[in-house]
Amino acid sequence: MKLPEKETEFLKWYSEVISYANIVDNRSPVKGANVLMPYGYSIWESIRNKLDAELKKTGHKNAYFPLFIPEDYLKRESEHFKGFIPEVAWVTHAGDRKLDRKLALRPTSETIMYEMFHLWIRSHVDLPFKINQFCNIIRFDTKETKPLLRDREFLWSEGHTCHATAEEAEEQVKESMVIYENVYREACMSFLILRRPKYDTFAGAIYSIAYDSPLPDGRTLQIGTTHNLGQGFSKAFDITFQDKDKQNRNVHQTCYGLSTRLVAAIIGLHGDEKGLIIPPFIAPIQIVIIPIYKKDNKDEVIEAAEQILKVLQKAGLRVELDKREGYTPGWKFNEWEVRGVPIRLEIGPKDIQKEQVVLVRRDNREKAFVPMKDAAKKSKTILKNMHKSLQKRADKLLKDSISHPKDYEELKEIQKTKRGFCRANWCGDEACGEKVKDDTGADIRGTREDIKEEPDGNCIICGKKAKEMVYIAPAY
Amino acid sequence: MKLPEKETEFLKWYSEVISYANIVDNRSPVKGANVLMPYGYSIWESIRNKLDAELKKTGHKNAYFPLFIPEDYLKRESEHFKGFIPEVAWVTHAGDRKLDRKLALRPTSETIMYEMFHLWIRSHVDLPFKINQFCNIIRFDTKETKPLLRDREFLWSEGHTCHATAEEAEEQVKESMVIYENVYREACMSFLILRRPKYDTFAGAIYSIAYDSPLPDGRTLQIGTTHNLGQGFSKAFDITFQDKDKQNRNVHQTCYGLSTRLVAAIIGLHGDEKGLIIPPFIAPIQIVIIPIYKKDNKDEVIEAAEQILKVLQKAGLRVELDKREGYTPGWKFNEWEVRGVPIRLEIGPKDIQKEQVVLVRRDNREKAFVPMKDAAKKSKTILKNMHKSLQKRADKLLKDSISHPKDYEELKEIQKTKRGFCRANWCGDEACGEKVKDDTGADIRGTREDIKEEPDGNCIICGKKAKEMVYIAPAY
Repeated sequence: MKLPEKETEFLKWYSEVISYANIVDNRSPVKGANVLMPYGYSIWESIRNKLDAELKKTGHKNAYFPLFIPEDYLKRESEHFKGFIPEVAWVTHAGDRKLDRKLALRPTSETIMYEMFHLWIRSHVDLPFKINQFCNIIRFDTKETKPLLRDREFLWSEGHTCHATAEEAEEQVKESMVIYENVYREACMSFLILRRPKYDTFAGAIYSIAYDSPLPDGRTLQIGTTHNLGQGFSKAFDITFQDKDKQNRNVHQTCYGLSTRLVAAIIGLHGDEKGLIIPPFIAPIQIVIIPIYKKDNKDEVIEAAEQILKVLQKAGLRVELDKREGYTPGWKFNEWEVRGVPIRLEIGPKDIQKEQVVLVRRDNREKAFVPMKDAAKKSKTILKNMHKSLQKRADKLLKDSISHPKDYEELKEIQKTKRGFCRANWCGDEACGEKVKDDTGADIRGTREDIKEEPDGNCIICGKKAKEMVYIAPAY
Repeated sequence: MKLPEKETEFLKWYSEVISYANIVDNRSPVKGANVLMPYGYSIWESIRNKLDAELKKTGHKNAYFPLFIPEDYLKRESEHFKGFIPEVAWVTHAGDRKLDRKLALRPTSETIMYEMFHLWIRSHVDLPFKINQFCNIIRFDTKETKPLLRDREFLWSEGHTCHATAEEAEEQVKESMVIYENVYREACMSFLILRRPKYDTFAGAIYSIAYDSPLPDGRTLQIGTTHNLGQGFSKAFDITFQDKDKQNRNVHQTCYGLSTRLVAAIIGLHGDEKGLIIPPFIAPIQIVIIPIYKKDNKDEVIEAAEQILKVLQKAGLRVELDKREGYTPGWKFNEWEVRGVPIRLEIGPKDIQKEQVVLVRRDNREKAFVPMKDAAKKSKTILKNMHKSLQKRADKLLKDSISHPKDYEELKEIQKTKRGFCRANWCGDEACGEKVKDDTGADIRGTREDIKEEPDGNCIICGKKAKEMVYIAPAY
């Protein structure tokens, strides 16, 4: 098996690797609603578990709201409705009965949740109010679908919060950024935190912050968003509370989402010519044990492998022993490399004699001969080192993906070749955003939210006075 | 707050208690698609976690399949299609575009999964093959909806397995029974394991086993099912494998499901006149700490309460400290009783002086004065005892719910008064099943699967020779 080159033919590489590694099966009968296979799902489970823990630690409570949203709920906040209506799937019948009113399948849950928040929130003691929901989301995007990158059905976490003051909502935006960063760092991701231009803000929000991760082909992928909703929804849905001074006030709201798309970003960012590389702390399988034997020493080797399995599991590691018959060790090496398992542990009769095992690190293929008794300790060290090294590589990839064009010609040239982010001055006009999109296919992705950057010249597109320093990149 | 009497007005009691205890909010705009509130959801999360662990331990892998199922997939197995078609919700439009073909929302996932199994399974080494999915399910039942008892959208786990032989499929049915029993026992449930009559078998299965739990009003609730699917689906979907002898054979299949309905059963079985009683091992909050103070000793009491909170949490207990201002201790006692938290820990200035805390057990209101340093240890003992005692009470409730009528008159009388299960001889004719349903509202729920019982007389309904000893009860 030879994969297409990742840098030059990324989508081909991606599509083959998610198939070989059993991440997604896109032979599902409904375009854009794919099957997340066990191995792919288990990566999402790791992310989900980490996110769940972070959300609970910060006082979020999980709940579940209906999939169905009546049309008039969606319409309540007009910008929101306009934003989502072209993508909404509608249920019109049940059995052979026509429904009295058609029902939307949630493209996001603001409207169905906020109608309940209106009923639940009464007083300032109910605030801050933080809800999270893990669920499926339906968006019949008219653009071409791509497994995990752009699906018509996907899984996500959506956080929704209510606060007494605008300041507290601002603080919540920051808290969500920390939560998401903690999740991303667990997966060794690199990303820019960008405040989107006004015209690219979430339908119904004051401003939107997005996490953009670079992919090897020079495009970026939005791997999460946080929105400050202000009081727009809270007024449309009449979510009020009695404040300490007995006055009724509208709450200030935020919401944020992180989806199975992150799995695509992890695959795209870390993989190599051999297949996936799964970051050690989110890897469903951290170590795979491959026993190497002939007929006459099989029992002995399997027994030793099983003993090591137990020792490693007891040390809290996620380990699998590949005892499958009818496959050569070489075939197994390949398969587990494609699937990106961080450490391969080889054990054969010679190793048993020497009381050692062989540990092979997935990303740099470093081979270590380790005394059996140190296998768990040494594995943990390797996983930690690999985690650091993947993070370093990802950070470098992000850094390298940022260019500093001095003029529009250079920007166009960059977007024709290596692409990635162009850091440049912008006047703030949507027209310039449209122009650069037409000329290069790249979007104005926004201004840095994590650090303060000022414009230092004129708009790179129109030459007028710049208002912001922005990052321009083509996106999935 | 006074609840309706549970035994005589169960549905009223149930409907009030799930509202007071913040389990479900049924003010959602779509009938039968309710909001699982944070506290209700957290009970489902406990069950889900336990079930997830049991499934993983037995080699099941989680995955995610599309919500959408094309009509021709549903039709592939004709009995299955007939069984579900009246309840299926259909998506016909996306945005303002009419879809080329309407899409069903999964009422269960056999058809969409098995089309994939057909592609995935090749050889005997792929077997046994065990998949689980946690997801939302849509059934537009025409019967009246009741929160958690009968919803149009609910959450569940569905296990689906493939095997080389009929014997292995039989074994899998047994394994699923053990898995579900382990989950139910964690929730101190009592239930009968019944093989449903032929005419009440899952659409497409050879036979169905169901777990029926008694409710206080004499009705029973099906809290889970296991189906032996034989080769019906496997032939309809062409799921074959190459066996060791190089022959291609169809797999033998099983499937099983457990839903949020179990939360309703837990509430119904264990609750009392004060509200919920959540079994200790699945309780999202096992201990609630209520600080009792006046203005002048508030700081001291809160500090002590926070210290105990830390100690108990460190001991691995799920604890919440209720510091809310503006509520009296008495009000808080009531609220946490309604919510069924197993232990209330009271701490006031006198307790601090005596270096003690007060532990009050939810189910029997036993009060214990415990040295502060023993709080964690003693709490664990109380939780264990409460678990045992709830199980004992549930087992007695089940036993008491089984009657042994000697003739049809007595059966009718029982079903008019206490109801519950009538253990009786049955000829096996569906006509008798219909008659007893018409006369009493009770269904023939099936024969015991966990123990072997033989008929010992004639059919209690028609007087002909009996073929089976069955359990007859009205159901939700």
